[in-house]
Amino acid sequence: MRKLSARGSHSSEFELIARLSAGIRLSGRTVLGIGDDCAVMSRPQGPLLFTIDSIVEKVHCDLRWGTPEALGARALAVNLSDIAAMGGRPTACVVNLGVRENITAQTLERIYSGLRDAAREVSTDIVGGNITRARELSITIALIGEAGSGVMRRDAARVGDEIYVTGTLGDAALGWRILAGKLKAKKNRAATKYLAERFLSPHARLYAGQRLAMLRPTPAAIDVSDGLMQDLGHILERSGVGAEIDASRIPISPAYRALMGDDLRHALTGGEDYELIFCMKPGHSEAELSRRLRVGVRRIGKIVRGKRLNVIGASAPIVAGWDQLRSRG
Amino acid sequence: MRKLSARGSHSSEFELIARLSAGIRLSGRTVLGIGDDCAVMSRPQGPLLFTIDSIVEKVHCDLRWGTPEALGARALAVNLSDIAAMGGRPTACVVNLGVRENITAQTLERIYSGLRDAAREVSTDIVGGNITRARELSITIALIGEAGSGVMRRDAARVGDEIYVTGTLGDAALGWRILAGKLKAKKNRAATKYLAERFLSPHARLYAGQRLAMLRPTPAAIDVSDGLMQDLGHILERSGVGAEIDASRIPISPAYRALMGDDLRHALTGGEDYELIFCMKPGHSEAELSRRLRVGVRRIGKIVRGKRLNVIGASAPIVAGWDQLRSRG
Repeated sequence: MRKLSARGSHSSEFELIARLSAGIRLSGRTVLGIGDDCAVMSRPQGPLLFTIDSIVEKVHCDLRWGTPEALGARALAVNLSDIAAMGGRPTACVVNLGVRENITAQTLERIYSGLRDAAREVSTDIVGGNITRARELSITIALIGEAGSGVMRRDAARVGDEIYVTGTLGDAALGWRILAGKLKAKKNRAATKYLAERFLSPHARLYAGQRLAMLRPTPAAIDVSDGLMQDLGHILERSGVGAEIDASRIPISPAYRALMGDDLRHALTGGEDYELIFCMKPGHSEAELSRRLRVGVRRIGKIVRGKRLNVIGASAPIVAGWDQLRSRG
Repeated sequence: MRKLSARGSHSSEFELIARLSAGIRLSGRTVLGIGDDCAVMSRPQGPLLFTIDSIVEKVHCDLRWGTPEALGARALAVNLSDIAAMGGRPTACVVNLGVRENITAQTLERIYSGLRDAAREVSTDIVGGNITRARELSITIALIGEAGSGVMRRDAARVGDEIYVTGTLGDAALGWRILAGKLKAKKNRAATKYLAERFLSPHARLYAGQRLAMLRPTPAAIDVSDGLMQDLGHILERSGVGAEIDASRIPISPAYRALMGDDLRHALTGGEDYELIFCMKPGHSEAELSRRLRVGVRRIGKIVRGKRLNVIGASAPIVAGWDQLRSRG
């Protein structure tokens, strides 16, 4: 098995990126893909969205926890989620791989294969690649997309808005704890498998985001990367408002309940779920929104005056993740 | 001095990126800068250029060699050079900082300050930032730009074209060797200082690239990141042609000559100069091009049939950097 040498020459890196990029199919939007100094894309239809995110081995993930393919797909998903939270459509990405010693070319190829498949699934072209030697594996992706007529911003929440979330919360945080050996639940194989998958293979809510961005007034939105409290906190801070959350309305999965009972700590403060939080004028029902967005939607509270984020009705103490909110008191 | 903790919470990272980004002035193109899930840019005027590059501590650079400001500026320059090689105009970038333990917030602020100044100098908005913990410092930047009516591609060289380079070659490679302690030249302070600066503070040939891209037929071009032989090799490979280079015409600086005499090894194979190599139809003079591009331009050879890159007239043996070319025989 060929190993990338720690002091690999530039030319071997060039060959590797060329091989990893072979077979990438590109849309008509891409005039020139990998192989030149820059990619060239035809002029977009609307405003441009632009974001960057990175996953680093041992910090955000561990190669032993899942397949390299899932890792590649995950690196794209966390970026796609940012586009979803704006209500946009992803179009193209460029990838920087930091590669440590003792990582096989086969592993890199499998990471890239997962990334390629994930990109194809959402019609996103991989138009640039770069490999650098490093002391740890990292996958950094910058993504561009196009906005439609509405852009969902964090600063658009208004007093009286209702607060919703898609899907269920806290699953990925539990999945991470299971994978990291911090939480044992051997008796419940199905639940642990489900939760680990939620961490390893998140899916960005692109369709839901695009549908939401068509509503008027355009909702405020953010994706759940750092946890409900903190991410909702970003909306509150940028919008200059407060919120009241009803703990009994926080959506949790059967697997979450099987392991944690009524303890909502991880649902309130656990990150990496990549669900959407959105705030919009009253007048919508959960059923109607769930149908429209093709995902379960739960109303969890409302936007109020002030600067506080209050959680009411929690049956277990909430102890973690309040640092930022406390300081904003 | 505040240190970023190795296991710093998400919220402290968020605060840090917010502080680093404070005071960034944005152009009218940017609808929404740092602080939301994505940046929003107004629709570009022409085709979009998109590229990513990364510098990693101990692999590409060393914090002890120069100021943190220069490091931040350099991380942008290596990306700008890719836009220059296409003949485009940079518009916006997103930045991912990998931050190791024991790096002070002040150092990060100085890196960002250099980056901000370098971006402002070329009217490029910093519209997104992300910080991740890592075992080594890295700065990864993805850059978008706009192409004019002509885009300089690597695959556009034609038999009979003349090959030119801007500036001088090999300086950065010598600078790197001096900084890394691999080359001693204590007697010539001025030369060593000049060469080290050429490595630490490269400048992308944006203006020259934009002027070149206005010519018809549009020249083929690439920037010198991996060394003349290898980068010209990329043009030859993509264009399906060969080249003959006259070693006596390779432009070297007085500092290079002071240290290396007639030994052209580093000028032929040393990277990181970020000059432009371009190939165009005969009919231009060095003087006219130098005036037009506002930088010294030297004709170094011509494009020929075949697949070989021949260097004629070298007075010292050329021993390094031929691996890729040899395999292409």
